[in-house]
Amino acid sequence: MSVELPSSVEVVNVGLGLLADAVRAQGRPVVQVDWRIPAGGDPHTVAMLRRLFGPRAAEVDAANAEVVRRLDEGVPMLVGVEPASSALPGLGERTVLHCGPPIAWEEMCDPLRRSVRAAVVVEGWADTPAEAGTLLERGEVRLEPANHHCVVVPMATAIGPSSPLQVVDNTVGSTRAFSPINQGPGEAPWFGMDSPAAIARLRMVRDVAGPVLAAVVRSAGPIDLAALAGQGVQMGDDVHVRVQATTNLLIRQLLPHIAAVEGPCRVETARFLAQNHLFFLNLAMAAARSLTEWASQVQGASVVTSMARNGTTFGIRLAGRDEWFVDAAPPIGHALYHSGYGPEVGAPDIGDSAVLELVGLGGAAAAGSPSVAAFLGGTMADALAATEAMDRICAGRSSRIRLPFSGMRGTPLGVDVRRVVELGITPHITTGILHSSAGSGQVGAGVAEAPLGPFRAALAALDEDG
Amino acid sequence: MSVELPSSVEVVNVGLGLLADAVRAQGRPVVQVDWRIPAGGDPHTVAMLRRLFGPRAAEVDAANAEVVRRLDEGVPMLVGVEPASSALPGLGERTVLHCGPPIAWEEMCDPLRRSVRAAVVVEGWADTPAEAGTLLERGEVRLEPANHHCVVVPMATAIGPSSPLQVVDNTVGSTRAFSPINQGPGEAPWFGMDSPAAIARLRMVRDVAGPVLAAVVRSAGPIDLAALAGQGVQMGDDVHVRVQATTNLLIRQLLPHIAAVEGPCRVETARFLAQNHLFFLNLAMAAARSLTEWASQVQGASVVTSMARNGTTFGIRLAGRDEWFVDAAPPIGHALYHSGYGPEVGAPDIGDSAVLELVGLGGAAAAGSPSVAAFLGGTMADALAATEAMDRICAGRSSRIRLPFSGMRGTPLGVDVRRVVELGITPHITTGILHSSAGSGQVGAGVAEAPLGPFRAALAALDEDG
Repeated sequence: MSVELPSSVEVVNVGLGLLADAVRAQGRPVVQVDWRIPAGGDPHTVAMLRRLFGPRAAEVDAANAEVVRRLDEGVPMLVGVEPASSALPGLGERTVLHCGPPIAWEEMCDPLRRSVRAAVVVEGWADTPAEAGTLLERGEVRLEPANHHCVVVPMATAIGPSSPLQVVDNTVGSTRAFSPINQGPGEAPWFGMDSPAAIARLRMVRDVAGPVLAAVVRSAGPIDLAALAGQGVQMGDDVHVRVQATTNLLIRQLLPHIAAVEGPCRVETARFLAQNHLFFLNLAMAAARSLTEWASQVQGASVVTSMARNGTTFGIRLAGRDEWFVDAAPPIGHALYHSGYGPEVGAPDIGDSAVLELVGLGGAAAAGSPSVAAFLGGTMADALAATEAMDRICAGRSSRIRLPFSGMRGTPLGVDVRRVVELGITPHITTGILHSSAGSGQVGAGVAEAPLGPFRAALAALDEDG
Repeated sequence: MSVELPSSVEVVNVGLGLLADAVRAQGRPVVQVDWRIPAGGDPHTVAMLRRLFGPRAAEVDAANAEVVRRLDEGVPMLVGVEPASSALPGLGERTVLHCGPPIAWEEMCDPLRRSVRAAVVVEGWADTPAEAGTLLERGEVRLEPANHHCVVVPMATAIGPSSPLQVVDNTVGSTRAFSPINQGPGEAPWFGMDSPAAIARLRMVRDVAGPVLAAVVRSAGPIDLAALAGQGVQMGDDVHVRVQATTNLLIRQLLPHIAAVEGPCRVETARFLAQNHLFFLNLAMAAARSLTEWASQVQGASVVTSMARNGTTFGIRLAGRDEWFVDAAPPIGHALYHSGYGPEVGAPDIGDSAVLELVGLGGAAAAGSPSVAAFLGGTMADALAATEAMDRICAGRSSRIRLPFSGMRGTPLGVDVRRVVELGITPHITTGILHSSAGSGQVGAGVAEAPLGPFRAALAALDEDG
């Protein structure tokens, strides 16, 4: 047996980057492997990871594979638009559904309170936001997380029983999820506003756009939302903060059905849709929720199937479990603010839209979106880094959401709490930013990094089950 | 003075790639500079280039800079839709306008003949395509290039006086250009079809879509077409073979104005637009033509301001000159064919849409378009190579058509015949492919390379003026 000597020696450096820098400074090629001590070296956490990546790995990996399959293979179809009161049999009277994990009125942030008050006024339970506030303080309105009804609502959205809901059926997994109609840009309650114009917008969405869209969806038949999202990503959407291309694809598909509606509501709804480049956001969220609902039926997985914020807390749920693991809602780190605003007036991260980051959209699809790159530092390399960070903490990749400028690679899918805790990398969530107190609506957009605590708590709960 | 010796020696190879390959095979880094003998070493051509890049360079460069400025700074606005007979005062009776350089009926290819016959039937000058053919053979219909009326028509489009034209004003340069309404995919005369369904489509465009779009544009006001095209390129359009994103942006903008049209034509037009992902193509062409018309008023430049094909000949015109420099229309080299078809039935390159390649769109914007990449070999590197080839033969770069995945670089603009002839690189034109004889319409799409002859002839004409 002969041994060949290598013709050249190269350096691979694992861990601390300083050594690699030193080699590079001498003009020699070096491969840097970004390795850090798992879980910051905390012995208890390392022990948990050793069990869940060790003896229990096969069991957890098998469950995760099924979760990833469901997130990837469910087929969410928009099948109708109907009031929450009829769409949700379990919805009590005088109930308002809100974004994020469970929260009491007293704990709610200013933007969410304004949105809840606007919903109470539109339901006719109070005449003014101030009266609505009194009712809420007295506990005379029931507050429930929308997520507990398989409803997902973006930003500070709050909805009452008369609110029209978009109905999305996952025709493979037989799960159903809902979202309200997106309220559009500008002066609207979902941006934490309860001004007369914002309340009027909510009424218009219910009384004008709702019935027209119900007729349009009846006529246009079931609409394949994942197919639209996949095309949108090919056209620069992350399908979270940027949904312009996907919205436009849908609008052109709906055009003849809108044109066929009789009566004056047709033109008003058309004007609303023309001004709403965010229209698809809520549909993407309901589609994602129909997938996570199916995935959440799998037991023993380490993949997150709920991720939501209410402006006060950030929470996740694991597949197969009901409890929320929560922590304080994070600030939005990488952000572009509207002129005259800055981080000092930005409310913490809010809304159920982070469900998109669980199914390969939003931050997971950042690498394909020049618009998201603008929030992240301005170059596509920054956006690519966000997607790659998600890739490191995900259990799989999408077969239908693909990145054309990254060799048609599928976006990362199925956030695995084991990887999150091991690497100390949490999901990057692309999102809007609301004013924290003035009721003046959206002040910017950016990317929030989820807090690590809930992922560590979820990991511990999974470990205890073993 | 001290001289530092280099610490390592690298290889730069200029010219023949074999040497670079040999160095690379030994595992050493090498930079290959792709240099070839200018103009293939032809002494006459080299002498022309020496004059136009030498003593006359300052004069030609100054003229080119003004041409590039006009292509880049003109502001094309869609201002109306009206019949050709009223839009074009110089249009005679019994005249059909066709794509490409001037051509007699006898020389026309099969797809263009079919399209001209369909137009003659729709004008009511004949009852059937066969009768129309008889009229045309007898010379009883006048045939003129659309370009001579500042009209641009895609593929095999032919139009008579009753055809509605989209009117585009360049509000900075005070030039006006026109294009017919895109006839949509499938069975339509612009794909070289004269079947009853194709003729019915042409009638519908004139009698239904034309009046509705005239009302819509009146209501929606002047529409900034360059702004839309710029956004479309950010969303993966090359704005030639792929205009889906730009079409959708426009459709959402027009939506309330379409919804406000009274009468049954509204729904039929909405259905037509919903099925026509190519709708913006003709608008982009008219916008480009309004820019090249302004640019063509500059004297002494070496930049091309017309580039068009009629399926038999390919022709260009230089800024400041009326004459066409023509050669045989090229085949479409890099192509994807519809199932059941191949190059043996593909007609040569046809249509006025190559005007887009003169203003930074089409092949010039290939690097931003995953769809175009599919025609060019399948990877974004192939698409990037197409844009870089255009960059080498262009006099400037667009300040408003930018490539987000190439560091927001402006697309190349202003094809310079000096560079084309020196490098032997001709424009890459993204285009559809028609059946050469069967009247069965589009059989594929791909990228054509323009023939070199017309560029050399244009160079000679410019040289003779000196």
